[in-house]
Parts: sequence; structure tokens; C-alpha cells
Amino acid sequence: MDQFFPIIPAGGPGSRLWPLSRQHRPKFLLDILGTGRSLIQETWVRLSAVAHPSHMSVITGAHLTAAVQEQLPELAVSNVFVEPSPRDTAAAISLTVAVNHQRNPKAIVGSFPADQVLAKPEVFPGAMQKSLMAAAAGDKIVTVGVPPAYASTALGYIHVGPEYDGGAIDDTYIINEFVEKPDFETAARYLDEKKWLWNTGMFVFRADSFLDALQANAPDLFAGVTEIAREWDGPQQESTLNAVWPELRKISIDYAVMEPAARAGRMLVVSADLGWDDIGDWASLVNLLSTDQPTDVVVIGDPSQATVADSTGLVVPQGGRRVCVYGVDDIVVIDTPDVLLVTTKRHSQGVRKIVENLRNSGHDELI
Amino acid sequence: MDQFFPIIPAGGPGSRLWPLSRQHRPKFLLDILGTGRSLIQETWVRLSAVAHPSHMSVITGAHLTAAVQEQLPELAVSNVFVEPSPRDTAAAISLTVAVNHQRNPKAIVGSFPADQVLAKPEVFPGAMQKSLMAAAAGDKIVTVGVPPAYASTALGYIHVGPEYDGGAIDDTYIINEFVEKPDFETAARYLDEKKWLWNTGMFVFRADSFLDALQANAPDLFAGVTEIAREWDGPQQESTLNAVWPELRKISIDYAVMEPAARAGRMLVVSADLGWDDIGDWASLVNLLSTDQPTDVVVIGDPSQATVADSTGLVVPQGGRRVCVYGVDDIVVIDTPDVLLVTTKRHSQGVRKIVENLRNSGHDELI
Repeated sequence: MDQFFPIIPAGGPGSRLWPLSRQHRPKFLLDILGTGRSLIQETWVRLSAVAHPSHMSVITGAHLTAAVQEQLPELAVSNVFVEPSPRDTAAAISLTVAVNHQRNPKAIVGSFPADQVLAKPEVFPGAMQKSLMAAAAGDKIVTVGVPPAYASTALGYIHVGPEYDGGAIDDTYIINEFVEKPDFETAARYLDEKKWLWNTGMFVFRADSFLDALQANAPDLFAGVTEIAREWDGPQQESTLNAVWPELRKISIDYAVMEPAARAGRMLVVSADLGWDDIGDWASLVNLLSTDQPTDVVVIGDPSQATVADSTGLVVPQGGRRVCVYGVDDIVVIDTPDVLLVTTKRHSQGVRKIVENLRNSGHDELI
Repeated sequence: MDQFFPIIPAGGPGSRLWPLSRQHRPKFLLDILGTGRSLIQETWVRLSAVAHPSHMSVITGAHLTAAVQEQLPELAVSNVFVEPSPRDTAAAISLTVAVNHQRNPKAIVGSFPADQVLAKPEVFPGAMQKSLMAAAAGDKIVTVGVPPAYASTALGYIHVGPEYDGGAIDDTYIINEFVEKPDFETAARYLDEKKWLWNTGMFVFRADSFLDALQANAPDLFAGVTEIAREWDGPQQESTLNAVWPELRKISIDYAVMEPAARAGRMLVVSADLGWDDIGDWASLVNLLSTDQPTDVVVIGDPSQATVADSTGLVVPQGGRRVCVYGVDDIVVIDTPDVLLVTTKRHSQGVRKIVENLRNSGHDELI
């Protein structure tokens, strides 16, 4: 544990669970499952079992920093990384890795999205143990994959290759390739073939190995974050950050590092049945919460505020008044004090259309 | 016109267009079409073209009297009939007819529900002319029927018999029978057969002929309303009303008078294409308002409060917040400040289920 330095990228536009999530209140700040903890707090608690809280970092936007610090009182001030502007995941993660590497040259870093849900959190420590062992052994980047629960067209898949023979580590495989959001037929085939895992976006690696892969595949980004990291813990942090950050290429960590590394045979996956879901839209939240009673309506919030009959789907009565739903199937009703959304499970992925529509019609206060 | 005395029964539980209509704010008090006038005001304006406002009466419940008088400033105080308690339409209409008859023995009375909508109000005066002529000529009770626009299982039908030969009055027929709310196959057959009309519930008759039919078919009611009417314009009004009214049989005017009168060959119908709808539920309101663009969403209220995409149905954004609807067909979304209803056109008739549910769970403030 002494060498493990988890980082938590906490960004996201907040539009996928709109209108409950908003630009200034993205999903990870919400107690979306009604557990009494927000998703970033859940992530923190999970990681606390495998790392020292003083080793854990969060990278987020300036408009979210105060909320993050309020929700995570154990987060050290020096481990708060504030993006001056959003420049996608490669810049955010690489900078945080570079700073951790400078502070601790032997650091093993793990990157854990702030807004994920694990239905089986008890599986997480074992998966981390395997990931740490696989990462420590060499120059590999390790990702965590989960067996798909259904054919999803909204998630990324990992094509599992041969078992990794670099150590006697169970459930660890070389990655053949990554595939983003396949069409339904392809996703259904993946489900049958048993050689595909969902890509959770959790990565574990030696900081030096990651930076090596970054230098090989995105030398411009490597140069930029190295320059910033060099000044990070000194008086020039702000000026260097402000000078270099806006010039960093906007690209996802998957495109910049993980996919090229996979092609080079440097990516491993640890398969773990975490009951993972990224809650990418309202439909996936319904699927996650309604496993016991798939024909009922899931109510998030105060169930006494909902009157439901002859319906299925999701009702979020958080608008301060009664929500009555009658005779509709697979419906999604999200009621908030200033805006109401009515859609269906099937259309959940398109909610950003409504958000775009509101943006274009000048209703920024609602998004 | 001098002999015509329209009466407007203004009751109804208000649950069919819930949650916009409520117990204390039934449909007829609402400007449901956004015309700037409530339905009872529209009814009043229509009747003002064929009758003296001083001849027009309203019968309603005590809890609605103030609102009715506020909306109808021309309504004479002596023409406001307040039901001490709801005792169905036979008692309400019969009492008002009896009082009008006592005041004007030659009165021709017409009964016009307060909450109806005519898409073609210009047809109304002609239909009234025929009805008055047919009623004046003899002992017949005349109803107004409209050619069905679709196969409705929610409306009452009139089986049209031979042409009435009691005068040279166009479009006037003897009624064979009334049929309430047929099943869908039957309603579809009626639509094909062309011998059936929707029963609008508008009736025109000589007061003495109606009371004669009442005496023949419901002698108990006749005795009761005659006793009250005798004292109506004197000092014993209240005591007689309070003594007799609670004992009056609860029965609809259709069962008590119109159906037996039809069996006796005493009912006529004037067929008139009024574009009539009773707006019995949200679905019929959508049908009425969406004739031009049946694939769109009808918005009642401020259209700028609704953001709609890839949907059909009805949106009523009257909750003071934005309503966003995406990817749902035949949806009905009624947003009010204290309660939201989401249902479908097909389930509109069942909205009273939700109202019952709320009543049983102690939420009288919402119904």
C-alpha cells in the first residue's frame, strides 16, 4: 500500500443524468443511489481500503473544487489538482501521474473515475491486489475489466487475449484490442463469445511505465505535463500551468495512451466481477437498481412523494411535489424544482439533445 | 327568444381532467383551450346569442357558487340555483325546470352542460332554432346529437329513427334508443351505419312537457321538486329545500326521464355538426386540439415553457417550471405547482384511479 497512489479524475459535463446532474453539480457529487454518500465519496471509501488517504489525489475543474473538498475532508490540499480549463482525460491524468512520479519515483498510480458504481464492492480489494502485482512486475498498464451483464451499445469493450505469464496472477490477460460502443448485434455477439469484458476505465500502472508509454505515443503531451510537473511543487506552479496547459492537446487517455499501448502488447486486463456500472444514462441506473423487480417502477428519493400505477421505469420525485405516473412503460420521469424531464429508458442516451436544445435557446441556468 | 329559458347545470367531480381540474376548480371554470374564457363563459356567450341573459340560470354546488358568479357577472342572483348537496342530474335539472315553469308557465327550457366545447359554434344558433321549433310544436323532448367523429367508447350514442313529421323542421328525427358507452367494436359499427349520433346532453323542451314526462316516469322526483318549486320565490325557500332535497332520489336525467321518454316515442333529436366534444378526458382534448398536426405535441399554456423533441401527445406546463419531453409517443404530461401527472392518451380515462388512490391515501388537498 505504501507505493500506491490513486488518482480520481472528477469531471464530466454532467449532462447524462440531467436534470438531476448539472454543469455545476455533476453526477459524482450526487447521492444518486440514496446510500447517504455521493459517488465520489463511495469511490474514496473504496480506495481507502487499499491506499493511504494521504496518497490519494483528485483532479477536477475550478468550479467543482470547493464541493469536492467539502465532500472529501481527508483529501490533502496538495493533492487537489485544478484544471484551469477542460482539456480531456489525457492531459488531466498525465499531469497528475507526472506530479506523483516526481514526488515518488517508485509510485504505482491507479486512475479511478469519480462517478462509478460497484454493486459488489467486496470484490474490489482483490481486483486491486492483482492489478498492483501485475503493474509492479513490469512495464505493463493494467486495466480492470468486468464480464458484461448485457449487450450494451453505450460502453467500451476489451477483447481479452492470452493469459499473462509475467507472474502467477489469476484472472490477468493480455489485451488484444479496445472497441468503443459497438452496435447492438456486435454487443450481443460479444456477450456470447465470453472473450470480451467491459472497460471500466480504471487503470493501474507504475508511473514511470505510464510516462514511458505517454512519451512514445504522445510526445507533445509528455513534454507539456513534464514541464508543468517540474514546477508543480514550487513557486512557478501557477505561471507554468497557465502558460502550458492551454496548449495541451485535447484527447482522451484511451486514444492517446491505452489503445496504442494495447497495439504494442503493453496492456493487461484483470477480470473482476465487480457489479460495475458507469451509470452513463438513466436506463443504466434503472437496470442497476431494478434487478430484483424488473417490472416495477424504481423511485429514487422519497417514495411517499410518488403515486404510481400500471407502469414500469424510473421516477425521481425531487421537485418538492407529488409525481403521479399511470399506465406508461419504461418511462423516465425526473422532477426537480426548476425543470422536469419525461423520456423513456430507450431514449436515455439522447437526453443530451434536450440539454443542447436548452443551451441553444439560452437556458444555461437549467443545464 | 322571449320564451326560451336556458339552464346550465354546472357540476361534475372535476376528476377527469385532473390535476388541472380539481374538486374546487372543476373543468367548466378553466380556460382549458386558452381562449381567454372558461368553458362556462363560452357556454354563456353561445347561449346569449339565442336567449336573454336575464332568462339564463345556473345550478351548481355551494362550494362553486362564488366562482360561478364571479365568472358570469350577467347571471341574475335569482337565477342561481344552489344544490345543498349533490343529488345527480335529475334532481338538479328538474328543480330548475319546475321553478322556471312556475315563473313562466309557457317557458321553453333548454339544458346545456357547462363544460362542453364546440369547435363550430357558428352551427349552434341554427341547431337551437330547429330545437325550439320542434319543442314548441308539441309534447316532445328534443336533444341535440352530433355525427360521431370517431368510434368512442367514452360517449353516449343516440339511435336515430324516422324523420319527425310534426313540422317542416330539417334534420329532426324520432329517437329509437339511447346507448351508453358502447364497446369499441360496437362504436366502430355505429360509425359505419350512419344511424347513430353522439348524445351531447343538450336538451330543449317545453317546461310543462318535461314535467309531464317526469311525473309519468319518476313521480317521486316530480312530487319533491314541485314541493320545493312552490316555495322557491317565497320566504320558505330554504326550509323547504333543506327538508325535501336530501330525500330526492339520486338518478341521472337520462335514466329518470330521457330513456323512458324515448321508449314512449317522445324524444326527438336534432342532428347538428357542432364540432362537439365533452372533453371527457385528456385524450379527447388532444383529439380536439390536434386535428391539424396529429403527429405533434399539443401544448396548453405558455409554449415557451416546454422543450419537446421526437414526441407526440399533450403537454400542460403550468407548474411554473420548464417541462422537457423527449422520445415519448401519445404521452400526457400535466404539470401543476403541487402535483405532476404523467400518463398516456390511452390511459386518460383511468386518471380517476390515481385520484382515488390519492383520496384513499389521505391526500385530499391534491384532488
